[in-house]
Amino acid sequence: MKHTHVSVPTEFVEAKGIRFAYRRFGQDSGVPLLFMQHFRGGMDHWDPMVTDGFAADRPVILFDNAGVAGSSGETPDTVDAMAAHAADFVRALGLSQIDLLGFSIGGYVAQMVTLHYPTLVRRLLLAGTGPRGSEPSRDPKYAEYAGSTDPTTGESGLEAFLYLFFRPSGTSQAAGKRFWERRHLRKEDVDPLSSPQTMAAQRAAIAEWRDARGERESELKSIQQPTLVVNGNHDIMVPTINSYVLSQNIPRAQLIIYPDSGHGSLFQFPELFVAHGRMFLDGST
Amino acid sequence: MKHTHVSVPTEFVEAKGIRFAYRRFGQDSGVPLLFMQHFRGGMDHWDPMVTDGFAADRPVILFDNAGVAGSSGETPDTVDAMAAHAADFVRALGLSQIDLLGFSIGGYVAQMVTLHYPTLVRRLLLAGTGPRGSEPSRDPKYAEYAGSTDPTTGESGLEAFLYLFFRPSGTSQAAGKRFWERRHLRKEDVDPLSSPQTMAAQRAAIAEWRDARGERESELKSIQQPTLVVNGNHDIMVPTINSYVLSQNIPRAQLIIYPDSGHGSLFQFPELFVAHGRMFLDGST
Repeated sequence: MKHTHVSVPTEFVEAKGIRFAYRRFGQDSGVPLLFMQHFRGGMDHWDPMVTDGFAADRPVILFDNAGVAGSSGETPDTVDAMAAHAADFVRALGLSQIDLLGFSIGGYVAQMVTLHYPTLVRRLLLAGTGPRGSEPSRDPKYAEYAGSTDPTTGESGLEAFLYLFFRPSGTSQAAGKRFWERRHLRKEDVDPLSSPQTMAAQRAAIAEWRDARGERESELKSIQQPTLVVNGNHDIMVPTINSYVLSQNIPRAQLIIYPDSGHGSLFQFPELFVAHGRMFLDGST
Repeated sequence: MKHTHVSVPTEFVEAKGIRFAYRRFGQDSGVPLLFMQHFRGGMDHWDPMVTDGFAADRPVILFDNAGVAGSSGETPDTVDAMAAHAADFVRALGLSQIDLLGFSIGGYVAQMVTLHYPTLVRRLLLAGTGPRGSEPSRDPKYAEYAGSTDPTTGESGLEAFLYLFFRPSGTSQAAGKRFWERRHLRKEDVDPLSSPQTMAAQRAAIAEWRDARGERESELKSIQQPTLVVNGNHDIMVPTINSYVLSQNIPRAQLIIYPDSGHGSLFQFPELFVAHGRMFLDGST
């Protein structure tokens, strides 16, 4: 029986002193699709409909970067250092090439993996993310909610999550609640929570990412990989215009913006996102 | 044998004194997809890979609006009046509902058909277009090339067309030349050229469309239909940012921006555009 998002056991691989937690499932052959997660999140925070959806056609790998959730070590406080850890992890698995799906801060890391280790990356998917020097969130509740923790679970609570990742419309909120149920289907062998050290370091990395290095778009223009950028049409975490800027400057970027949705558009439209993503990964454009 | 873009005979239907030229092919049943063409263009200016691609799943209808190419009458000088003619044509065919694909000025008309005759339109596709009050082209050669005519054919010449609809890259120019060949595959029962009256009236309508009516986005927010907006990432005719503005303001809009392409992205990526368009037309989002 093939493993799924819910059933696949967590494994570990060591590289440069870090013991990385990861899960691999889906097809045995083909270029693996590596998932890079959002602020605070670990392997359990992905949508089984997205991971299993992609796993129907290719190997899928979830992992926790250095210090995050089930991986050992300290989380570094720059995106560049996170990218170096991710490259170490990929090489420790013996992989010469991957496709990369980065969500939010995971999308920042995915851009830097692609720039610094270009031969490792075949195709790049960027969701709910933006370029270095991004337009920051201007939402009045963003800071309070992003840092809030449900005292019973130690995690971001449902109310904050629905506010930050979905739109206020009934349709979007209902889709958010359905995602929340799917995201909790896995009950055994789950990740430990990310530590306060991880949250502080990721916050510092996000702040550092807001400062452009020289011309904002010059890094983007060096990305040679075919790239698919997706977001909701009203992302209040990493404003949607950043996705447009990515697609205007990454030479081979395609952009898809979903209706009535926010930062979590890939969780609001999991089937459509997987269908678009599969067409992109298997396509020539 | 089913007819195709190249083989289907031109038919005519009369409504309010206009004799409309049209071609219908593809599946017999289902909601027909009506194509609304760009400046100067008639039925022969579509891409057979796009029209036949959609026709595999649904009825496809090409037509010339009042005064254009093979249709009688005068071309009016406002988008609203063009929309009224289009609605007359749809009703004259006895259709109660259509899907609508509008390209460039055809996208302006499609927006107004949707706003003024909302029950006629099930789903809306907008390609290479923008809202009323659009950001105008700032390309230095735009005006000269858009009005230029090849003296041997009386049509827009290949050089101007490749400049206006495609990017300067080798890949985009080569795709443009392949489109140009496909677009000339139909040799018999072709449209007559559009008249100087049509060109002048369409120019006036485009100029009038640049003036916002009240708040630029208020009309867009009234469009209730699921909408797919597509464009190339560097459209120099109707700048790409207009597609972004459409998707930010039409409540149920999805946006797809294609890489290394311009105004004619649907002709540069005909298979991908048809695949995306089919997913949209048959989807629930």
